Amino acid sequence: MKKVEAIIKPFKLDEVKEALQEIGLQGITVIEAKGFGRQKGHTELYRGAEYVVDFLPKVKIEVVLPDETVDAAIEAIRKAAQTGRIGDGKIFVTNVEEVIRIRTGETGADAV
Amino acid sequence: MKKVEAIIKPFKLDEVKEALQEIGLQGITVIEAKGFGRQKGHTELYRGAEYVVDFLPKVKIEVVLPDETVDAAIEAIRKAAQTGRIGDGKIFVTNVEEVIRIRTGETGADAV
Amino acid sequence: MKKVEAIIKPFKLDEVKEALQEIGLQGITVIEAKGFGRQKGHTELYRGAEYVVDFLPKVKIEVVLPDETVDAAIEAIRKAAQTGRIGDGKIFVTNVEEVIRIRTGETGADAV
Ligand SMILES: Nc1ncnc2c1ncn2[C@@H]1O[C@H](COP(=O)(O)OP(=O)(O)OP(=O)(O)O)[C@@H](O)[C@H]1O
Ligand SMILES: Nc1ncnc2c1ncn2[C@@H]1O[C@H](COP(=O)(O)OP(=O)(O)OP(=O)(O)O)[C@@H](O)[C@H]1O
Ligand SMILES: Nc1ncnc2c1ncn2[C@@H]1O[C@H](COP(=O)(O)OP(=O)(O)OP(=O)(O)O)[C@@H](O)[C@H]1O
Ligand SMILES: [Mg+2]
Ligand SMILES: [Mg+2]
Ligand SMILES: [Mg+2]
Repeated sequence: MKKVEAIIKPFKLDEVKEALQEIGLQGITVIEAKGFGRQKGHTELYRGAEYVVDFLPKVKIEVVLPDETVDAAIEAIRKAAQTGRIGDGKIFVTNVEEVIRIRTGETGADAV
Repeated sequence: MKKVEAIIKPFKLDEVKEALQEIGLQGITVIEAKGFGRQKGHTELYRGAEYVVDFLPKVKIEVVLPDETVDAAIEAIRKAAQTGRIGDGKIFVTNVEEVIRIRTGETGADAV
Repeated sequence: MKKVEAIIKPFKLDEVKEALQEIGLQGITVIEAKGFGRQKGHTELYRGAEYVVDFLPKVKIEVVLPDETVDAAIEAIRKAAQTGRIGDGKIFVTNVEEVIRIRTGETGADAV
């Protein structure tokens, strides 16, 4: 199992969610975040206004999925989240050793 | 060291916290989240009202602990978080390579 | 690639951010959290007032970085976050298998 985490622009959440559902993924967790990348000190556009990039609002999504769906998930997120402008975000992949579905007690691939 | 993450129903936080303390765990981090699992498009009960499951409020807890306490932690969380209804949540276990307690500089098992 | 996560006192965020920038790190994600460590049931100082430590407001920072910068990042965070009082926080290091910069498609060290 892997966890695919992505930090994206908040207004892209719906498109990313739909892109993940189109490839058959059913579970997603979303957390509000703020952050910055390389443009600290420069300006970035957010909701039509320019901000000096210190902390900008971002959304973090987390999707735990079987290993063989990681590449499709990355591709789906990238396509949906990309605007071509700075601040589009990052995707991080980590290993997940165990998954448990609380209601049923199922584990592993059956639990995602 | 391992990190046990759980996405649970918000009203279950106190019970889960107490269940973890009963098995001797002292540290916990809690983050507000929203998400959905397999019932997207169906309805789920939240605070007595029915919602079409798109994003529902959830709470994410993170507990970093020694390897030998992982199974007890999973069991404690599962028992405390379970209602038997859909939406009860997921538990994810990941590896943690290093832990540092900032005040004392301790590392590893002494730091958790 | 590694992820260095730290749970710190909220008022230390700016100092920690600057300490990370001083060692050349450019990206950071910040999430609001609450939590407790070992002093549950004891009191902790927060903004000049004493609280019985149940859940106290904390900030979680996440920095994904090349392996060779982990030690410098830990040192920078520890120095900046430390007050010497209880509740100073924890640092966790985990492995990151893949990093993708959404705008450019770059991966690995070029993407952080
Ligand atoms: N190394 C990193 N570690 C943790 N979070 C990061 C890192 N880099 C970026 N982020 C998160 O991703 C968000 C978006 O980053 P961003 O897309 O601006 O990265 P970038 O490297 O500056 O790329 P770009 O040049 O396309 O803007 C940041 O606000 C931050 O929350
Ligand atoms: N694969 C996943 N990746 C990331 N987060 C997930 C995943 N599956 C579920 N979650 C998170 O856990 C929460 C609860 O999921 P939920 O218990 O509804 O899962 P489920 O598979 O639909 O099981 P059930 O049939 O018991 O409802 C979701 O709201 C979401 O935040
Ligand atoms: N084992 C743990 N797992 C997850 N989060 C933790 C853990 N221990 C601490 N935390 C998080 O770090 C925050 C700060 O912890 P804290 O510094 O109080 O740890 P401590 O072990 O009690 O050390 P100290 O004696 O210096 O207070 C907590 O509020 C919690 O959010
Ligand atoms: Mg940027
Ligand atoms: Mg469900
Ligand atoms: Mg403490």
